[in-house]
Amino acid sequence: MIVGILGLGYWGPNLVRNFLAQSEVSKVIGCDLRPERLKFISERYPSVHLLNDSNELMNGEADIIVIATPVKTHYEAAKKALENGKHIWVEKPFTSTTAEAEELISIADRKNLKIFVDHTFIYNGAVRKMKELVEANELGNVIYFDSERINLGLFQKDVNVIWDLAPHDLSIMNYILPDHEIMAVSANGIANYNGRENLAHLCIHFKENTFAHFHVNWVSPVKIRRMIVGGDKKMLVYDDMENFEKIKVYNSGVDFNTTESIHEALVQYRIGDMFSPKVSQVEALALGAKEFITAIQENRQPLTNGKDGLDVVKILEASDKSLKNNGEIIELKSTILV
Amino acid sequence: MIVGILGLGYWGPNLVRNFLAQSEVSKVIGCDLRPERLKFISERYPSVHLLNDSNELMNGEADIIVIATPVKTHYEAAKKALENGKHIWVEKPFTSTTAEAEELISIADRKNLKIFVDHTFIYNGAVRKMKELVEANELGNVIYFDSERINLGLFQKDVNVIWDLAPHDLSIMNYILPDHEIMAVSANGIANYNGRENLAHLCIHFKENTFAHFHVNWVSPVKIRRMIVGGDKKMLVYDDMENFEKIKVYNSGVDFNTTESIHEALVQYRIGDMFSPKVSQVEALALGAKEFITAIQENRQPLTNGKDGLDVVKILEASDKSLKNNGEIIELKSTILV
Amino acid sequence: MIVGILGLGYWGPNLVRNFLAQSEVSKVIGCDLRPERLKFISERYPSVHLLNDSNELMNGEADIIVIATPVKTHYEAAKKALENGKHIWVEKPFTSTTAEAEELISIADRKNLKIFVDHTFIYNGAVRKMKELVEANELGNVIYFDSERINLGLFQKDVNVIWDLAPHDLSIMNYILPDHEIMAVSANGIANYNGRENLAHLCIHFKENTFAHFHVNWVSPVKIRRMIVGGDKKMLVYDDMENFEKIKVYNSGVDFNTTESIHEALVQYRIGDMFSPKVSQVEALALGAKEFITAIQENRQPLTNGKDGLDVVKILEASDKSLKNNGEIIELKSTILV
Amino acid sequence: MIVGILGLGYWGPNLVRNFLAQSEVSKVIGCDLRPERLKFISERYPSVHLLNDSNELMNGEADIIVIATPVKTHYEAAKKALENGKHIWVEKPFTSTTAEAEELISIADRKNLKIFVDHTFIYNGAVRKMKELVEANELGNVIYFDSERINLGLFQKDVNVIWDLAPHDLSIMNYILPDHEIMAVSANGIANYNGRENLAHLCIHFKENTFAHFHVNWVSPVKIRRMIVGGDKKMLVYDDMENFEKIKVYNSGVDFNTTESIHEALVQYRIGDMFSPKVSQVEALALGAKEFITAIQENRQPLTNGKDGLDVVKILEASDKSLKNNGEIIELKSTILV
Repeated sequence: MIVGILGLGYWGPNLVRNFLAQSEVSKVIGCDLRPERLKFISERYPSVHLLNDSNELMNGEADIIVIATPVKTHYEAAKKALENGKHIWVEKPFTSTTAEAEELISIADRKNLKIFVDHTFIYNGAVRKMKELVEANELGNVIYFDSERINLGLFQKDVNVIWDLAPHDLSIMNYILPDHEIMAVSANGIANYNGRENLAHLCIHFKENTFAHFHVNWVSPVKIRRMIVGGDKKMLVYDDMENFEKIKVYNSGVDFNTTESIHEALVQYRIGDMFSPKVSQVEALALGAKEFITAIQENRQPLTNGKDGLDVVKILEASDKSLKNNGEIIELKSTILV
Repeated sequence: MIVGILGLGYWGPNLVRNFLAQSEVSKVIGCDLRPERLKFISERYPSVHLLNDSNELMNGEADIIVIATPVKTHYEAAKKALENGKHIWVEKPFTSTTAEAEELISIADRKNLKIFVDHTFIYNGAVRKMKELVEANELGNVIYFDSERINLGLFQKDVNVIWDLAPHDLSIMNYILPDHEIMAVSANGIANYNGRENLAHLCIHFKENTFAHFHVNWVSPVKIRRMIVGGDKKMLVYDDMENFEKIKVYNSGVDFNTTESIHEALVQYRIGDMFSPKVSQVEALALGAKEFITAIQENRQPLTNGKDGLDVVKILEASDKSLKNNGEIIELKSTILV
Repeated sequence: MIVGILGLGYWGPNLVRNFLAQSEVSKVIGCDLRPERLKFISERYPSVHLLNDSNELMNGEADIIVIATPVKTHYEAAKKALENGKHIWVEKPFTSTTAEAEELISIADRKNLKIFVDHTFIYNGAVRKMKELVEANELGNVIYFDSERINLGLFQKDVNVIWDLAPHDLSIMNYILPDHEIMAVSANGIANYNGRENLAHLCIHFKENTFAHFHVNWVSPVKIRRMIVGGDKKMLVYDDMENFEKIKVYNSGVDFNTTESIHEALVQYRIGDMFSPKVSQVEALALGAKEFITAIQENRQPLTNGKDGLDVVKILEASDKSLKNNGEIIELKSTILV
Repeated sequence: MIVGILGLGYWGPNLVRNFLAQSEVSKVIGCDLRPERLKFISERYPSVHLLNDSNELMNGEADIIVIATPVKTHYEAAKKALENGKHIWVEKPFTSTTAEAEELISIADRKNLKIFVDHTFIYNGAVRKMKELVEANELGNVIYFDSERINLGLFQKDVNVIWDLAPHDLSIMNYILPDHEIMAVSANGIANYNGRENLAHLCIHFKENTFAHFHVNWVSPVKIRRMIVGGDKKMLVYDDMENFEKIKVYNSGVDFNTTESIHEALVQYRIGDMFSPKVSQVEALALGAKEFITAIQENRQPLTNGKDGLDVVKILEASDKSLKNNGEIIELKSTILV
C-alpha cells in the first residue's frame, strides 16, 4: 500500500515514522508547501518521497491520503481525495461542520472507500483498559464522566480550545459509553486574548441518568490530563501525567439505602481497596495505522471512522452555539447517525 | 462576653473549643435537643453550660448566639436572636434565600447588632496569602478562577452539593476579587440518588474579562481541594491537600504580541520560576472568633459579615434556577448590595 | 484497673486520652514535676488525678505505671514500678542498654508482671496489613527492607537520631520478619550540631539472604516516611505520608533464569498490576492500650513486650559502636533472646 | 572533525544523533560487531559510515574515538586509541581500576590528547542549577548530600549496581562539592541473584563536617531519582522524576543556639518559603559533545576529564573492598590527584 501524507507540521514526523514502520506499506509520500518542513523530513526519513504540490499527491499513486492540515481545510482535501478514489485518514477534529462530515461519509460510502478519523487516544493502552473495565461492568452504571485537559499550551490560530483539545476527550467518552444517548450540551468559557476561547467548560446531559463535563484550558500553569469515571459500583481515575499508575480503580462509592429512616442518612459512602492494572505501552499511532490498513484489507469500517468523527463534530458545533449564548442548553436531535 | 451555641453537631465541638479559648469570653453555653450531643460535649468540655431548650438560650444572658443548625432553620433562629438583642454568628450558607438574608441584615443594622457569617476559609493562612498576592498585583489582572472541591462525602439531607460545598469557594472568590462584578451564573449537574444534585459545575461570568468555575462533587473517588487563579502576569495554584506547599506561584503565562505577523503565533506561552511562600498555620476558626469579638468591641462590621453571606446566597439561589433549566444563564442584577 | 502515667510531656495527652477511653480503666493518675504540664492536662482532662511527686505515684494504688520520661530514666523508673508490683508500659526505646532491658525482663518474669513496650506502629493499620501480606507469602521471600524516616524535626537532648527515630522502623521490621536472624549491623552518620548524630544510615545483615537499611534524619527539608519491602514474588511500598493509599503492592519483580544463555540476560524484570488494600484507621494507641490491659487480664505477654523492646535496644546499642568506628560491622550474637 | 563511535548498543543511537548534529563534525563513523546493530543505525542514520572491525576504526581517519563498550574493555580500547593519536570520549565508569585510569591520563598528557569521561549529568540543566546555587552559597555550608537512584532495572552482566548507577551520582557530588576532601568510604549491600550486588548503600565521610550517602538499587518497585543537599542555611531537593519542578530550594533548616540554656532546646528548626527555579531543557549529551570539541580546539581539559573519571573510579574501587567486608571503612588517601 502507498500512503501519502498531506501536511508535515508538528504531527507529521510521527505519521511518517509510523507508516514507514507498517510492513504493508511499500512507500510513503510526504507533501507540504513549506521547504523547511520538507528538508526536516528528508534529513530524518530519507526514504520518504517528498512533494510540494498537493495536486500531484492527490492525482498520484497513493492508496491512502493522510490529511494533517489545519481543520478548516480538511473538508476540501478529504473530498478531493475521496473523489480521486483514495481512502482517507483525517486528523481530529474530522471537519469544521456536521454538514461537511456527513457529505464525506456519504461520498466514501458510495465509492466504498474508508475514512479513518485520528482519534488517537482510542488506541492508547490506558483508554483501552478503561473501555475493558466499563464493558465488563466493573464500575456498574456510569453516573458521570469528568475530564480535565489543561496546560500552558500553544494557542491554535484557527479554532478555539474546545475544538483543539476536547476531541480527544469526547472521542474517549463516546468510545467507553457507546450506548449512552447525548441529549444536550452546555458550554461556558472565556476568550482573553484573540477572540477565541482559551478556556472552556463543556457539560453534556444524557438520556440516561449520566452527566459529563470537560475542562479544556490553554492557560493553566499546571498540566493536568485526568479523567474520572464514576460508577454506582466502583470508580475509576485515569491520570495521564502519572508515569506508571495511569489507571486506578477504586472500590469506593455511594450506597443508597431505599428503606426510609428518619435518623440515619439514606446515602452513605463506602471506601475500599484500590487496584491499578498494568496498561499496554504500545504506541497508539502504530495501532491506529495498523487498524486502518487492516480495515481497508478486510473491507470494513475502521474502529474510528467517519461516524465517530461526525459524532464529535456534532458536539463541537453545539458547543459553539452554547458558548455564544453563555451556556445556553443546546439540544442534539438524533445524536447517533442512523 | 457570653457566647451561646445553638446546635452541637459535627462542627459544634470546634466552635466550643475555639470560643472557650478566647480570653474575652467568660462563659460558653451550648444548646441541642439531642441528649447524646449534650453528653458528648459535657465529657470533653465540662466547663460549658448546657441547655436543651433553645428558648432558654435565646432569652438568656448570651451576648452572641452562634447558629450551627441546618440551613433551613438559620433564618428563624437568627431573626429571633437579633430581636432579642444578640449579635449573631451564622454557619455557611448564611440563609436559604436572599430575601431572608436581606431582612436579617436590615434588622441587625437597625438594632446596631453585628452579623458574622462563618466563611471560615477567609481566616485560613493559604487563602490570606492568595489575597495578599492578588492585592499586591503579583498575578496582574486575574483572567480566571477555577475551583475543584470533590470527595466521597456524606450527602446533606436538606441541600444539594452546591449549597453544601460551594459557599467555601464562592466566599474565597469574592474575598480575593472584591471589585469584580458578577453578571451571570450558569450551573449544570446531576442528581443520581435522592433528587438533590450530588455533583455540579457552576460557571460565573463577570463584567470584567474574567471567568470563574466551580466543580463540587460528593461522589468522587479522589479528594481534590484545588484552586487555580490565572493572571495575565503570573498564575497561582492553591492545593489544600498538600501538607506543606499549599500555595504555588508560577511565573508562567501567556504573552500576547499585538504586532500582527503572518508566520508567527500571536500568542506565546512563557514558563519561568515557581515560588511557594510560607503560609500561616494558625487555626482559621480561632481567628474568626477573635475577629467577631473584636468587631463587636469596636462597633464595626466583621470581615465576613451579612453582606458577604448575602453575596454568596445570591449566587446559590441563581444556581438553583440555572440547574433547573440545564445550565440556562441567570443574570444577577445589582450583585453588590448598595 | 488504675493507670498511673509518669511524664506528661509531648506524648502525655495522647496517653491520658486513650487510657481514659478504656472501659476497663476506672481511674487515670498523671504525674509530672512541671506545674505547666499539670495545668495543661487538668484543663483538658479534668477527671485525671494529678500528682507532682513520683514516689507518691509509685507507692500508690496504680495497677499499671506508664513511663513516658526521657530514655535515660526509663530503667530506674521501670525497676521501681516493678518492685512495687506494678505492670509497666514503657515508651520506646525501652531502655538505654541491653543489660537494663534484660534485668527488667527478669524482674517482671520473677514477679509475674507484664511489660509493654510502646512500639506504637505495631498497632497501626498499615503495618498490620504489611504483616498480613508478608505472612500470607504474598511477596514471596523478602530480599530487602528499606526504610526512610526523615524530616526537619526537633533534636532530642539525650539521644541521637537513631535512638529517637529508628525504634519505630526496627520494631516494624522485627514484627514483619519474625523468623529472620540478624547477624550484624553497620551504621554511618554525622553530628553537625551538638555532638549527637542528626542523620544516620543503619544497615542490617541477616543470616538469610536479606538486607535491611534505615535512613533516619532530623535535618531533611522534606518529610518522608516510607518503607519498601522487596520480595522475590512481589514488592510492597508503605508510604505514611499518603493520605489514602498507604500500602501499595506491586506485582513486579525480577525473574531469574537459571538456564545459562549467551545472548539473553539471565535476570529480567517484570512489571504488572498494582494493588492498594484498604487499611484500618483505628488509632494505634487505642489498640495498644487495649492489648496491654487484655494481656494483663489473660496473664500472657502482650504483643509488644520486654523481649521486643530488648531486640530493638540490641540493635541500637550495636549502632552506637558502629557509628563510633565509621561503619565498622558489629556482630550480634544470639540476637534472639532464649 | 571526524568522530568514530565504538559500540552501538543501547546508548549508541544517542551518541550518533548528537555527534551528527555538531557543526564541527564532518563525518561520523560507527563500529560494532553485531550486524543487527549496524542495520539499526543504518536505517535511522543513513549518513553514518559503518564498520564491523574495530582495528579499522582505530587505524582510520577519526580524530575522536568514542568508547561505548562494556566497562572491562574501556582500558584496552582507550589505550589503543590514545596510542594511535586519537582524543577519547569514554562512557562512565571511566575504567575498571584506578591504575588503568591513571595510566590513560598519563598517556594522554604525554601525547597532548584529551580525555572526556561521559558523566552526562554534569551537562544536565538541573545539575547545573544545583552547582550554581551551591557556588553562590545559597545553601551555606553543605552538611550532607543524599542520593537515591532506585528502579526495577536491567541487571548489568559485568558490574554490580554501584558500578552501574553510582557514577552518575558520584560525579554530581564531586561537581557540586569540588573542594570537599573525601576521607573514607563504607558500603553495604546484597547480591540476591547472580553474585553481584543488586542493591547497595554507599556512605562517604569527608574531611569537612559533611556526609554523603548513595542508595542504588535494581530491584525497587518504584522509580526514585532524588538528591537532597542539606546546607546550614537552606536545603535543596533535586527530583528527576518531577516533570517540571525538578529543583526545589527550601528556606528551611536548623538554627543552632550557642547560648546554653537549661529549659530550651539548643537546636531549633525553621521552615520558610520554597523556590523552584526554571531549569534549562537543553539535552545534556549535546552540551557534552560541544564541550569536548571546544576543549580539543582550545587545547584545554574538558569539564569532565580523565581526572574526574579517576576520582569516581577511586570511590567505586573502595566500595568493592568495603562491600566484601560488610561495610568496613576504607580510607582514601590523596583522594584528589595531584
